[in-house]
Amino acid sequence: MGRWEGGAADRLRLAAFELYTERGYEQTTVADIAARAGLTERTFFRHFTDKREVLFSGSAELQQLFVSSVTDAPAAASPMDAVTLALEAAAGLMQPRREFSLVRQAIISANTPLQEREHIKLATLAVAVANALRARGVGDPTADLTAQAGIAVFHVSFARWIDPTNTRDFAELMHDSLAELRSVTA
Amino acid sequence: MGRWEGGAADRLRLAAFELYTERGYEQTTVADIAARAGLTERTFFRHFTDKREVLFSGSAELQQLFVSSVTDAPAAASPMDAVTLALEAAAGLMQPRREFSLVRQAIISANTPLQEREHIKLATLAVAVANALRARGVGDPTADLTAQAGIAVFHVSFARWIDPTNTRDFAELMHDSLAELRSVTA
Repeated sequence: MGRWEGGAADRLRLAAFELYTERGYEQTTVADIAARAGLTERTFFRHFTDKREVLFSGSAELQQLFVSSVTDAPAAASPMDAVTLALEAAAGLMQPRREFSLVRQAIISANTPLQEREHIKLATLAVAVANALRARGVGDPTADLTAQAGIAVFHVSFARWIDPTNTRDFAELMHDSLAELRSVTA
Repeated sequence: MGRWEGGAADRLRLAAFELYTERGYEQTTVADIAARAGLTERTFFRHFTDKREVLFSGSAELQQLFVSSVTDAPAAASPMDAVTLALEAAAGLMQPRREFSLVRQAIISANTPLQEREHIKLATLAVAVANALRARGVGDPTADLTAQAGIAVFHVSFARWIDPTNTRDFAELMHDSLAELRSVTA
C-alpha cells in the first residue's frame, strides 16, 4: 500500500453517503465509493463487508452500549429502570450525530430492503437487551416485554428526533415517549 | 388443467411443511413441493409467489384482522383498548392453529433469513395497526407507541403459547402479558 489511510473508514462513509444520496443506493457500487474517496476497493473491504454495512456499522456500537448499560445498572434498578439508563446512554450517543442520522435516514427511507434491514437490527437489539436483563436475573416474560417496550420507545423517539422540523433533544423526546407508554398502558 | 384441484393450496402447504421439516427449507424446491402434493409447478404458482410465501401467506389475514378490529372498536375505546380487542381477535384466529404454528415455528427457527422475514412481518403489522389508530383520530406518538406495545405483547405471548410445554390458551397468555407490560412500565 504505502499511501496514508488515516480516517479511511470516515472518508469511505462520507463518499458512500454522498453517492447514495446523489444516485441512489442501488445504483452505487463499491468501486464508485472507493473512487470517490480516493481509495482502493481493497481498502474498502478492509473496513466494510459490503456497501450495505456502511449504513449499519453503527448498530454494533449502539447494541454494545445498550447491553453494557443494562448490565452495569445498579443492582437495585428495576428492569425498566435499567432499560431507561440504556435509553439515556443511547440518546447521548446519538445526539451529536443528528445530521449524519438525517442523511442516513433519507437513504434508508428510499429503499425497502434497507428499511427491512433496519427493522431486523431493531429486533436484534431487543433480543440483546432481553438477554442482558435475563443475565441480571429478570425472568420471562418480563425480560422480553421490557426490552421490546424499551426498543419501541427508542424507535418512536428516534423518528420524532429525526423529523426535519424537530428542535428537541433525543433524551427529552425519549422521556416523553416513556411517559406516553406508561400512560397508554395504564 | 382438467384435474381436480380442490384444496390445492392446503395440499401444497402440507407438502411444503413436510419437506421443509424433513430436508430443510433451503434444500427444498418448488418442484419438490408440487411433486409431493401431486400437483404441477404451475398450480403452485397460482397459489403462492414463491416457496417462502407458503410460510407467510397467513400474515396478510392476521394483519387484516388486526386492522379491522382496531377500526371497528367502539368509538369510546381508548387506543390500548382498541389494540386489546385486536389482540383478542388474533388470539381467537391463532388458537385452533397451534399444531400448524408449532411446525411453522420450528422451520423458521432453523433459518436466519426466515427469522428476519418474521421480524419484518411483525414490524409491518405494527405500522398497519398504528395507521388504523391514526385513522381513528389517535395522535402521535400515541399511535406508534400503542401499536408497538401491542405487537410486543402479541410477539411475547406467541412465544409462550408456542412453547412445547405450554398448555394455556393464547388469549390467557396475552392478557397475562398485557398485565405484565402495565406492571413493568408503571
